[in-house]
Amino acid sequence: MEEKEMLLEEIISLVEQRKLGKIKEILSEMNEADIAPLFEELEEKDIPVIYRVLPKDLASEVFAYMESETQELLIKSFSDTELKQVIDNLWLDDTVDIIEEMPANVVARILKTASPTVRKQINELLNYPEDSAGSIMTVEYVSLNKDLTVAEAFKKIRHEGVDKETVYTCYVTEKRRLIGTVSVRDLLIASEEQQVSEIMETNVISVHVNEDIENVGRTFSKYDIMALPVVDNDDRIVGIITVDDIIDVIEEEATEDIEKMAAITPTDKPYLKTDVFSILLTRIPWLLLLMISATLTGGIITSFEDALTAFPALVAFIPMLMGTGGNAGGQASVTVIRGLAIGEVELRDVFRVLWKEIRVSVLCGVVLSVAGFVKILLIDNLLLNAGVSMREAVVVSITLALTVFFSKVIGCTLPILAKKLGLDPAVMASPFITTLVDVVTLVIYFIVASKILTI
Amino acid sequence: MEEKEMLLEEIISLVEQRKLGKIKEILSEMNEADIAPLFEELEEKDIPVIYRVLPKDLASEVFAYMESETQELLIKSFSDTELKQVIDNLWLDDTVDIIEEMPANVVARILKTASPTVRKQINELLNYPEDSAGSIMTVEYVSLNKDLTVAEAFKKIRHEGVDKETVYTCYVTEKRRLIGTVSVRDLLIASEEQQVSEIMETNVISVHVNEDIENVGRTFSKYDIMALPVVDNDDRIVGIITVDDIIDVIEEEATEDIEKMAAITPTDKPYLKTDVFSILLTRIPWLLLLMISATLTGGIITSFEDALTAFPALVAFIPMLMGTGGNAGGQASVTVIRGLAIGEVELRDVFRVLWKEIRVSVLCGVVLSVAGFVKILLIDNLLLNAGVSMREAVVVSITLALTVFFSKVIGCTLPILAKKLGLDPAVMASPFITTLVDVVTLVIYFIVASKILTI
Repeated sequence: MEEKEMLLEEIISLVEQRKLGKIKEILSEMNEADIAPLFEELEEKDIPVIYRVLPKDLASEVFAYMESETQELLIKSFSDTELKQVIDNLWLDDTVDIIEEMPANVVARILKTASPTVRKQINELLNYPEDSAGSIMTVEYVSLNKDLTVAEAFKKIRHEGVDKETVYTCYVTEKRRLIGTVSVRDLLIASEEQQVSEIMETNVISVHVNEDIENVGRTFSKYDIMALPVVDNDDRIVGIITVDDIIDVIEEEATEDIEKMAAITPTDKPYLKTDVFSILLTRIPWLLLLMISATLTGGIITSFEDALTAFPALVAFIPMLMGTGGNAGGQASVTVIRGLAIGEVELRDVFRVLWKEIRVSVLCGVVLSVAGFVKILLIDNLLLNAGVSMREAVVVSITLALTVFFSKVIGCTLPILAKKLGLDPAVMASPFITTLVDVVTLVIYFIVASKILTI
Repeated sequence: MEEKEMLLEEIISLVEQRKLGKIKEILSEMNEADIAPLFEELEEKDIPVIYRVLPKDLASEVFAYMESETQELLIKSFSDTELKQVIDNLWLDDTVDIIEEMPANVVARILKTASPTVRKQINELLNYPEDSAGSIMTVEYVSLNKDLTVAEAFKKIRHEGVDKETVYTCYVTEKRRLIGTVSVRDLLIASEEQQVSEIMETNVISVHVNEDIENVGRTFSKYDIMALPVVDNDDRIVGIITVDDIIDVIEEEATEDIEKMAAITPTDKPYLKTDVFSILLTRIPWLLLLMISATLTGGIITSFEDALTAFPALVAFIPMLMGTGGNAGGQASVTVIRGLAIGEVELRDVFRVLWKEIRVSVLCGVVLSVAGFVKILLIDNLLLNAGVSMREAVVVSITLALTVFFSKVIGCTLPILAKKLGLDPAVMASPFITTLVDVVTLVIYFIVASKILTI
């Protein structure tokens, strides 16, 4: 990190001294993924100047790694020729990613510079629904005819490979239908006269173009593959997804799930690049909803006001009981939500999950109940002199056990129920569970209290 | 899913009828990653029988995908020759993964069957610390001499490639020091007489053998690479990590973070395979700790008992205020924790984060404060006839604003502070924040109440 800042300072001072040759020398030795972030720190007026210093090929690669604001700024400074050069050098799926973030006039300019074939491909890719396999695939793959010999296949790969995102898996097609795959490794090991059909793998893993990218990520992690062919309804290959794009997808999906679990509306934008108002919009609706739903807990307390006036010590345990319930329920819900997300838990496992959580919650409940009882007698009464009666301690202790039981049962059931209803299980995490559990906890507390303390 | 169950039923009925030929026919057409889970559902006595039906090569591949209990059961049923056959066919990093889960006597048997060279390599790999690059790398890569011609390089790849986990990136070494990489794609495009040194990439991305795997994952996602060389202190290549292993690492790291955020001690074991007592152990310490720390909130409430008796309506708002504080703080902390985990937020960004959260929290606080005030007047008083006085409503409303402010500030600061102290930021998520925020909320509530209601 220190290094990055020193480098940035050096470059800025070189910009001021207009020593562009020296900058070119430094940047040419660097990796594109390291150069791109430097541009985010430069002053706007310097960005196009420094960008033009980069060697052509490196420039396009750096461009693909930039934030969309910087890309937009650069495109606006490009001549049509410069724009065409950059776009021609980009992989088609990167171009589509960039276009998706640009305002309409910039999109129009990009499409104008593209060749008619590329323009058609871009438009097709743009039409796939967000978060579908089609939206992240590229159409730049090598397809082979099954009757080619290994030598002919290599000739085709050598000829076409420069423009393809991966050459290491080639797709064997017949009337565009995907009938097999063959890896360059298999081709290298085979003898030159063998036919592709003899060495191809016919048991092909593929995904449908409308498949959700979360499942695409799971397919990659399940089968340990480098590239995945994407097919349409008639099993015709329409594109491929490469593993490098999937790493980002898996990270983004995990981030989205984590955000939903914390009652935040997910966004694609990096936190530090998001303005305050946009952050507010991702958070405030949930806070409002949860605040208003807490009216219920208020109502329950109000209706038990007499009991609380008679036994004021009971009030002091409300936060502890609700907190423990929320934490216990949150543990169960988050475990199940993550299990569903990575495919460890399936819908049909609902009773196995429930049975497991019931046993865990009984054990948890007993331990906490005993510990809670001892805590009241030792810490609250002896140390803090709180004067909690034995009967009140029993009420709290029984409530703890019951709360933990119901919290965990609710926590493990709701995400599965949500999934069954076609909703996102991640939303059923701690904040929602907590609100529900708060109500359950209070009801249990007051029922137990009224029985034991005969209110 | 349906399909999987039907297949399983078919296989079980074929096992009962001892129609092993038919089973072989079905399984031979399937992918190893789909076959392995079937074994987890079979009865123990049938597992070795069905396993022996598989063609040799497929059998080893299936073996690598099995759960460790099943692997152990199989190894115990293997003759030494069978064991050697399986181990010889496995990639070295998979063998090491398997060994790490086996009891000592099984490990001894595996090491005995391995050749002295392989045994030495296994022992070296086993010695790298858990979660280090060394612990997940493989030593099966292709290394090339810089003076080879392209034709000679291909000859070497053809000769050695069968036993290497990837051949698509080859590593150019000089006295074992890594001086460059060359991809098969570049070799294919180059002319046969060119030398490796002419076409190799000298700007090599590599990681140190002790690097944390979380950072290794980040390196893959940053540079979009398929394989990453691992080097020692003297820049000598000691192994490579391939992207398929990294996908699992990224998923596991995300799962671990999510578990920590929900106050669960992370484990590697799949939820449904973990016994009830082990689950209990991952959860109960946190619940106990959080329960006992809630003593503080109880103490605060007790010390304000007189105020609560004088204004009983105040009690009803405690859950709502604490809930809102917890949710607001949780949003901020989870955002920062995830930002730190994926490298979007760095330690040096602490003041940028704080300044952003301060502005967000002021806006959030004002909105919630106004909404809370309106809610009390409309829902609580008009609809539910709660009889909250205007002064009490003002107390709640001001407390809301202050609570949200402090919760978000605490929520965004603690994870960064934890990281600075070398602790895991993920532990500073909702449950911990909530406990702290509960205390802060109550203190604010009673201070505001005593000022405005002049208690």
